Amino acid sequence: MTRNNAHWIWYPGDWEIWLHEQVSVRREMREVIFPPFWRLDQHYSSVIFSYKYELNQPEEVRFIADGQFSVYLDGKDNDRYHDETVILPAGEHELLVAVYSKESVPSLYVEGKTIFSSDQWKVSCYDKHWRQVGSWAKELSSPEMSPSQYRLATQLHSPTEVWDTEDGWLVDFGKETFGYLQLNGITGKSKVTVYYGESKTEAQDREHSVLLDQVNVDGTVDSNFTFTKSRAFRYVLIVPDSKEFTFESIQMHYEYLPVQYRSHFRSSNERLNKIWDTSMYTFHLNTREFFFDGIKRDRWVWSGDAYQSFLMNYYSFYDPDVVKRTLIALRGKDPIVTHINTILDYSLYWFNGIYDYYLYTGDVEFVKTQYENMVSLMDFCLDRRNEEGFMEGKQEDWVFVDWSDIDNRGEVSTIQILLSRSLETMSLVAVMVDDHERASIYKREAKELRKKTIDLFWDAEKGGLVHHRYQGELKDKITKYPNMFALMFGYFNDDQKNKVKEQVMLNPDVQAIKTPYMRFFELAALCEVGEHRFVLNEMLDYWGGMLDLGATTFWEEYDPTQSGNEHYQMYDMKYGKSLCHAWGASPIYLIGKYFLGVRPLKPGYEVYEVEPQLGGLEWFEGTLPVGNGEVDIYMDREKIQVRSSFGKGELKYHKDHSSYKKQIPTDGSWLEVQL
Amino acid sequence: MTRNNAHWIWYPGDWEIWLHEQVSVRREMREVIFPPFWRLDQHYSSVIFSYKYELNQPEEVRFIADGQFSVYLDGKDNDRYHDETVILPAGEHELLVAVYSKESVPSLYVEGKTIFSSDQWKVSCYDKHWRQVGSWAKELSSPEMSPSQYRLATQLHSPTEVWDTEDGWLVDFGKETFGYLQLNGITGKSKVTVYYGESKTEAQDREHSVLLDQVNVDGTVDSNFTFTKSRAFRYVLIVPDSKEFTFESIQMHYEYLPVQYRSHFRSSNERLNKIWDTSMYTFHLNTREFFFDGIKRDRWVWSGDAYQSFLMNYYSFYDPDVVKRTLIALRGKDPIVTHINTILDYSLYWFNGIYDYYLYTGDVEFVKTQYENMVSLMDFCLDRRNEEGFMEGKQEDWVFVDWSDIDNRGEVSTIQILLSRSLETMSLVAVMVDDHERASIYKREAKELRKKTIDLFWDAEKGGLVHHRYQGELKDKITKYPNMFALMFGYFNDDQKNKVKEQVMLNPDVQAIKTPYMRFFELAALCEVGEHRFVLNEMLDYWGGMLDLGATTFWEEYDPTQSGNEHYQMYDMKYGKSLCHAWGASPIYLIGKYFLGVRPLKPGYEVYEVEPQLGGLEWFEGTLPVGNGEVDIYMDREKIQVRSSFGKGELKYHKDHSSYKKQIPTDGSWLEVQL
Repeated sequence: MTRNNAHWIWYPGDWEIWLHEQVSVRREMREVIFPPFWRLDQHYSSVIFSYKYELNQPEEVRFIADGQFSVYLDGKDNDRYHDETVILPAGEHELLVAVYSKESVPSLYVEGKTIFSSDQWKVSCYDKHWRQVGSWAKELSSPEMSPSQYRLATQLHSPTEVWDTEDGWLVDFGKETFGYLQLNGITGKSKVTVYYGESKTEAQDREHSVLLDQVNVDGTVDSNFTFTKSRAFRYVLIVPDSKEFTFESIQMHYEYLPVQYRSHFRSSNERLNKIWDTSMYTFHLNTREFFFDGIKRDRWVWSGDAYQSFLMNYYSFYDPDVVKRTLIALRGKDPIVTHINTILDYSLYWFNGIYDYYLYTGDVEFVKTQYENMVSLMDFCLDRRNEEGFMEGKQEDWVFVDWSDIDNRGEVSTIQILLSRSLETMSLVAVMVDDHERASIYKREAKELRKKTIDLFWDAEKGGLVHHRYQGELKDKITKYPNMFALMFGYFNDDQKNKVKEQVMLNPDVQAIKTPYMRFFELAALCEVGEHRFVLNEMLDYWGGMLDLGATTFWEEYDPTQSGNEHYQMYDMKYGKSLCHAWGASPIYLIGKYFLGVRPLKPGYEVYEVEPQLGGLEWFEGTLPVGNGEVDIYMDREKIQVRSSFGKGELKYHKDHSSYKKQIPTDGSWLEVQL
Repeated sequence: MTRNNAHWIWYPGDWEIWLHEQVSVRREMREVIFPPFWRLDQHYSSVIFSYKYELNQPEEVRFIADGQFSVYLDGKDNDRYHDETVILPAGEHELLVAVYSKESVPSLYVEGKTIFSSDQWKVSCYDKHWRQVGSWAKELSSPEMSPSQYRLATQLHSPTEVWDTEDGWLVDFGKETFGYLQLNGITGKSKVTVYYGESKTEAQDREHSVLLDQVNVDGTVDSNFTFTKSRAFRYVLIVPDSKEFTFESIQMHYEYLPVQYRSHFRSSNERLNKIWDTSMYTFHLNTREFFFDGIKRDRWVWSGDAYQSFLMNYYSFYDPDVVKRTLIALRGKDPIVTHINTILDYSLYWFNGIYDYYLYTGDVEFVKTQYENMVSLMDFCLDRRNEEGFMEGKQEDWVFVDWSDIDNRGEVSTIQILLSRSLETMSLVAVMVDDHERASIYKREAKELRKKTIDLFWDAEKGGLVHHRYQGELKDKITKYPNMFALMFGYFNDDQKNKVKEQVMLNPDVQAIKTPYMRFFELAALCEVGEHRFVLNEMLDYWGGMLDLGATTFWEEYDPTQSGNEHYQMYDMKYGKSLCHAWGASPIYLIGKYFLGVRPLKPGYEVYEVEPQLGGLEWFEGTLPVGNGEVDIYMDREKIQVRSSFGKGELKYHKDHSSYKKQIPTDGSWLEVQL
């Protein structure tokens, strides 16, 4: 029997929601679970699949289900089968398969000559609606591995150093890593405690290391022992209870999402090259079943963090699947009673994540499947506007914006700008699904909100948008947040742009941003206004500063004024700070979008622009994904060379105070321009 | 350590929803699963419990959870414990316990001297709302048995006869039963097939018996074998593959919900007494984790069927818990996208079930917990009204009313009457929770709908309400359905009442009702207009007819014109008819409410009426539950004797064409009146 293109199918979104639940509860504090403080949603345990077929002759078909199943035809639900192999009668029929599974997602694999499980099938959770099935045709297409058996890949790594300590061993894996420890060649039997550390200090601090494992190991039963829980660490301290206990070697199964490294970057500045490499490694460690915020303590999926990861992904792995999984997981199921992650701004980033996904991948089909989810989340948001049409945090909402000393009560201008952008996304997607009525409403709402936001919060004297209005009183404090988003979204006129650049973004008297999270947008905004040189120096300084301290991955927060173990503290915990945090990897995006200078102009890079900027470097060379192809770029002070394998690329460059545009060849030849 | 009154706690409704999911998927057709064709909802897998305490001195407290858990204080979520025993510090604190469980309901048991799990705790699914915990203090209060380990009781029963057949054994358990077969003293090893039958014919029909089990039994490993799946049957045919296989005896673990038989009835008519006993047994078999419709094939929870079971329960076991479980399970979770069981009328019965629960038990607390659920279901219903304010079936709705030859398209008058009654219930409960704004809206809507329904559908000439209006055209067909509901709900004036009685209810030209389901309401309505003698004869005839055919429990449908194996057919299946169906037990309600004549006038029998009616019998005696007490009644043609142990009971009786009322003593003495 041929397998054709059969793959596993399920209720759309349910596998992602199930997987999200699984990974979300793996967060632990010293072996104690720490589930997310937002609602975790569940898959439907009982679903029914449908496929209408026409056969000239009977066909033998094999059914494999994750769960209990029953097969019947044409609604004759009293005649059911659950044999693995059924001979389907010729003629026109509707094939129905009910699957039930409580623990894993009810999924189905059907294998026949012409009838097999594919995206042509429909599925229902018995709510009187039939939907196109969910699937991941690329990875989940083997009848031997059901969707619930999905695991990331692993690779065996060895440590760089092992030291004997007074009562055990201290091990260094050379850099931050993630996975399962393994002891080989064990002698003896003992309870063994392992203290994990992102830093050596943490691994040696038995009282305060955030992660630890206590296991019973018996070398007489099995000479190798693999730990069952994946952990983030660079160092481990291993302490057996019994002095007789020993082992020959220690290794770890490095666990990772197999992705392609589709981008490459090298420049005249070795420090910048190391920042790029470290960013890529940091980002890869956090790119897993979903985009995580951090891999040690956190291990949750946050919409604000993920929004940035989406953008970094387009300039590195260009993996659409992990974006889709993350968007689905974040949105969860109805009814919506709180914001995503309980944070107001995080609902809004979700819409913007959809917008960017469409822009960078052109994947209309996926975006369409989310339209229903978008509408209900937007309804939720719009219902929460105040009488003047502005959104503000209600009692149960967390208005985050950033970890900093800011007052987010009342009408926060940043929120209105994010909502306006979200409404633009809604309008765009509504058109795709031919919902023109809603499209025009969203468009009007977006325009009105944008106008009245700028009208209200713009302070002509201070040259920027003020942070918020509280209890009817417009506060005069300027922060960078609303200004940098408005810059990036093109909400300012040229005059406002210039003022904002000088009086806000480059003004040392305006409160500085301390998290790499918001530095992402800050530096992107500065590039938008041509401050590449400034941004390059900031990168070398800020990210370089972490490298100087021995960082092998980038951190959740970095304050150059701190010293020693102070760097490890956060959230009132000695080792609370994540030393491998996704938002630490933003140089990927800054270098890709603003130095190599590649950005899509039409969805999926059908048309795109390449505007390389040395920003003070002597030269750089790089490769970036553009849709289904790549673009290669070289630049030094004399010339730019560029070639591509996909889409309509246009090189934009500046010479003698003028701008020029040239088409980029896709036939393998290089376009070279002299500067 | 004392246990105080600790009991298990969980997110309100989640244990019931989880249990409902478990039992719903136990339905099988010849070993193949047959899940419900409505959406099955899931429990929240991740919840958090909260309890605010004040202690003068530290207290040792023990934590037991169904699931993984972590304990922390005062929101300090980085300091977590999962030790079984924790010493809580003195002072004022908020104790927080997070519990995660995918397969079973996350539940918690806390045991300390003054701090223990009780209904004083709050719980959240992390949706920013804290709710009072769910619990079942009576049954689920042992730390040794978690809520997910809950099982019905069992009792070992032996068959009345065992016959050797050509290749196995045919066994008769003497009457319809439910449970797990057990083979004792097994010799040999074989695959064994068991064919179950509610009738002997079914058990012997290997091709068509609805239930069967195929198991591998090995007497050399264990001489006893208990089947793992509970089945409904009276007969079983046991066929081993191997001729060497044999056993000494067969028994069954009868599985049942432990309930109190709080009512009793005996009369001068032995046939009626047998009808009462058979009804009680039928009803008990269907009174399980929830009220089932039937125990063989069906095993699902249906709102229309349950609505009647609720009423029968008040006149038999008076068990509030199974009513509450059933109401919660039927309502399920948000969002509501279809009617309950996908049937329009079944959403409406749910509201009426709440009304009756309140009237019969006076349990305000439970009703209040359902208010939020009631509002959202009613919003769903009201949104589906047409322009004229009537409800009609939309494309995806099933408008059932009854198994009969009726046209339910368009505006069905029965539906409007049920909706009107539902709105009255909403108004009543809205007042309980001080939602006076909604209360007055519901009241107004109910009144308006009731008026315009009678105005539109009343046919003065035909003396009744016509069945429906379709595409703007009022159809002239009269059915009993709208008329009997309007009678029972008191929607008619005296003139209309008399007309309906003569021209509809007692009119042989009006389409007869064939299901015990609607006969329930029909006969109740006839009692409401004093036709006890007619109803008694109907009971003796219709239910007696089933007894004459050897019924040991009452059926889903009974057509006296059928003969032999025809009786077993339904749904195009040789044995599709349920021979033990809850709605077959309606004589419980008819005898209790209309012959013994007991009905609450104020919630929970605070005030009630006893109006015994012989209806042609020479005498009867009986006991019925009235709230926390009982009422005992004796009546013959000369006298009535009555006494009670609860509430303000009033005897209502008729003598010489006049009506009299007398207070019923509650001091143990009998009130006797001469007729």
